[in-house]
Amino acid sequence: MGTEISKRMAALKPSAIREILKVTADPSFISFSAGNPSSELFPVEELASITAEIYEKEATTALQYSVTEGYGPLRELTRERYGKYGIGNDDDDTIIVSGAQQGIDLATKCLVNEGDAVLCENPSFIGALNAFRSYNARLIGVPVDGEGMDTGAVEEALKRDKNIKLIYTIPTFHNPTGTTMSIERRKRLLELAEKYDVMILEDSPYFELAFSGEICPPIKSFDTTGRVIYVGSYSKIVTPGIRVGFVTAPKWLVSKMTVAKQVSDVHTNMMFMMVVAKLLETCDMDKHIENCRLTYSRKCAHMLENMDRLFHKSVTYTRPEGGLFIWADMPEGYGGLGLCDIARRHKVAIVPGTAFDVNESAENRGFRLNFSVPTLEQIEKGIKLVADSIEEYLFG
Amino acid sequence: MGTEISKRMAALKPSAIREILKVTADPSFISFSAGNPSSELFPVEELASITAEIYEKEATTALQYSVTEGYGPLRELTRERYGKYGIGNDDDDTIIVSGAQQGIDLATKCLVNEGDAVLCENPSFIGALNAFRSYNARLIGVPVDGEGMDTGAVEEALKRDKNIKLIYTIPTFHNPTGTTMSIERRKRLLELAEKYDVMILEDSPYFELAFSGEICPPIKSFDTTGRVIYVGSYSKIVTPGIRVGFVTAPKWLVSKMTVAKQVSDVHTNMMFMMVVAKLLETCDMDKHIENCRLTYSRKCAHMLENMDRLFHKSVTYTRPEGGLFIWADMPEGYGGLGLCDIARRHKVAIVPGTAFDVNESAENRGFRLNFSVPTLEQIEKGIKLVADSIEEYLFG
Repeated sequence: MGTEISKRMAALKPSAIREILKVTADPSFISFSAGNPSSELFPVEELASITAEIYEKEATTALQYSVTEGYGPLRELTRERYGKYGIGNDDDDTIIVSGAQQGIDLATKCLVNEGDAVLCENPSFIGALNAFRSYNARLIGVPVDGEGMDTGAVEEALKRDKNIKLIYTIPTFHNPTGTTMSIERRKRLLELAEKYDVMILEDSPYFELAFSGEICPPIKSFDTTGRVIYVGSYSKIVTPGIRVGFVTAPKWLVSKMTVAKQVSDVHTNMMFMMVVAKLLETCDMDKHIENCRLTYSRKCAHMLENMDRLFHKSVTYTRPEGGLFIWADMPEGYGGLGLCDIARRHKVAIVPGTAFDVNESAENRGFRLNFSVPTLEQIEKGIKLVADSIEEYLFG
Repeated sequence: MGTEISKRMAALKPSAIREILKVTADPSFISFSAGNPSSELFPVEELASITAEIYEKEATTALQYSVTEGYGPLRELTRERYGKYGIGNDDDDTIIVSGAQQGIDLATKCLVNEGDAVLCENPSFIGALNAFRSYNARLIGVPVDGEGMDTGAVEEALKRDKNIKLIYTIPTFHNPTGTTMSIERRKRLLELAEKYDVMILEDSPYFELAFSGEICPPIKSFDTTGRVIYVGSYSKIVTPGIRVGFVTAPKWLVSKMTVAKQVSDVHTNMMFMMVVAKLLETCDMDKHIENCRLTYSRKCAHMLENMDRLFHKSVTYTRPEGGLFIWADMPEGYGGLGLCDIARRHKVAIVPGTAFDVNESAENRGFRLNFSVPTLEQIEKGIKLVADSIEEYLFG
């Protein structure tokens, strides 16, 4: 009994993607399996000089215990920066978290009882799905099309199941499909949250990486009744290894999430909360993000060109307008998992759709391709290998 | 319904100590209420130069996503360093966590079902108690005397309650009482864990801060049957703001805690895992810790001397041999909370025993004094103010 894993954790497995990443540590592999931003875009010099300055002038503040809510100036600068996009109003508060993942975890811990349900896009981000599972929540998947989450299916589910507590969505440049929810659906989702008395958990790590530079308004920007928990991240526009993200949500929830964070890790790494604050203050972030956008836009276009040219016509795929991922589907009768196995033999790593499926053992024809990490040359070479793998799968 | 806090979190309040800390931000206050190590002992120059070197040579590794288990070399160096004290054997594994608090949180999440019980010293560390509460665990407090947790009372509780999953203890320089568990009791506790099939969660952030330099063997060092989860911290010997700690525990549990950590914060801040690794490798840590010990020993002695001289004789207190805290008790009929209120008016901050009580509304005559943060001068001045407050409380 004493050496038995708790019910909430017993069935939870490590993310399949992590296992794939281990296989592809082999440098002869080309990997389209990561979810990482491109290291070449990290503002290393700026970070190094800001860090050195903090050690010189404010070492004690950066190294001593701090408050759970996060470094005050970073909370202010975050509110200011994202306030421009309509994120946060007078009834909201902002807490700094150790990456967006922690925001998802804490919101779930504070709102979802064991046995309650979470409604989400299917497929969806595995880290969030596993966070929900780790609190013994039931997952209800809703299909995604070119306009994002199917709000008709959302309403049907809400009618059927009275214990849905959260609607989880990545509305902009969705992981793993790369699609973006239309404005109409964003507004409709909010109406449904209101009507059926549930909260929306809006996970939006990619929205600033719009290839066109045009920002799609977050669901949170339409929220006048305190229905949206907005989870943001500095991972994709600064760097992910520092683990700094934020949550902007109604005050009653943020104050409880603060208590939950206190027992989880006391506070986020103080030095890097200060570093991000100073970066926002002193660097031209918009120019930096513009640079990220151009790089990813070029890589995505290159990947799509090569796919257009080389993939068998029975394979369909999304054409993202931002973010890090393309999603492709094998034709009827072929599974994404089968393709991934063949691709691995060809030394190219892609992630099978099943890894993102609400039902992990469901049939899934999809696979996910990441374009942010590989070089243009690797994209060219790797897509050829995926195309060869597809041919092999289809025609032996 | 959708805007209702979950059952596990509904009743949880922020730590009372945090609230006291906010009051004492006023610089005219003398604070004995912190749990912080002394900032003057932080190895700032070493940390700054190591950080600069990592930015120069390994920036990508330090800033990109990493594996959940933690930075490999730090796991190795931790195993090596603490292996010398008998912490960890071939059946154990070590995971880096975002401070010892996260180790406590993850162990609870992986082992304790809602409604299960955790046995702990009463009083105990509020951060751990709140972590247990946040998973809807029941707390069963066991008295502490000069030899630590009362193992007779432990066995009675284990006989009575079949759903105890964890025995939580801070055996060395206990927070808040400053006492140390005897070797005999350590061994007895292990026997009981074995006999009643429960796990021991050994929280040991202070054990290297023994004033005499003589290290008391951890419970983990006697563990041959995989009953002990050892939670360690770099907060007290390096710095706390970086949030780097570790857990050494049986492999079956560490692998599940890794999954739990993945959904909690993906991984700990990578730069500072690398910084601590390099510090362990290149600096004379034993000399640094020796220096910490001497400083704290001097401060503790100074506080005790002043208490001996000035406190009313009806007030009793512990004489710690290490760590950060002294615990005192008012005589029968007087509460620690009452004293703290008077002390606050005298502009000295101490923490009432109720803050550490398993039953938050219980009568408690105790109060906790921290000696690591104040200067020798502040100790002298502050103890005089506490003594005055005691007189005022006792005699009006």
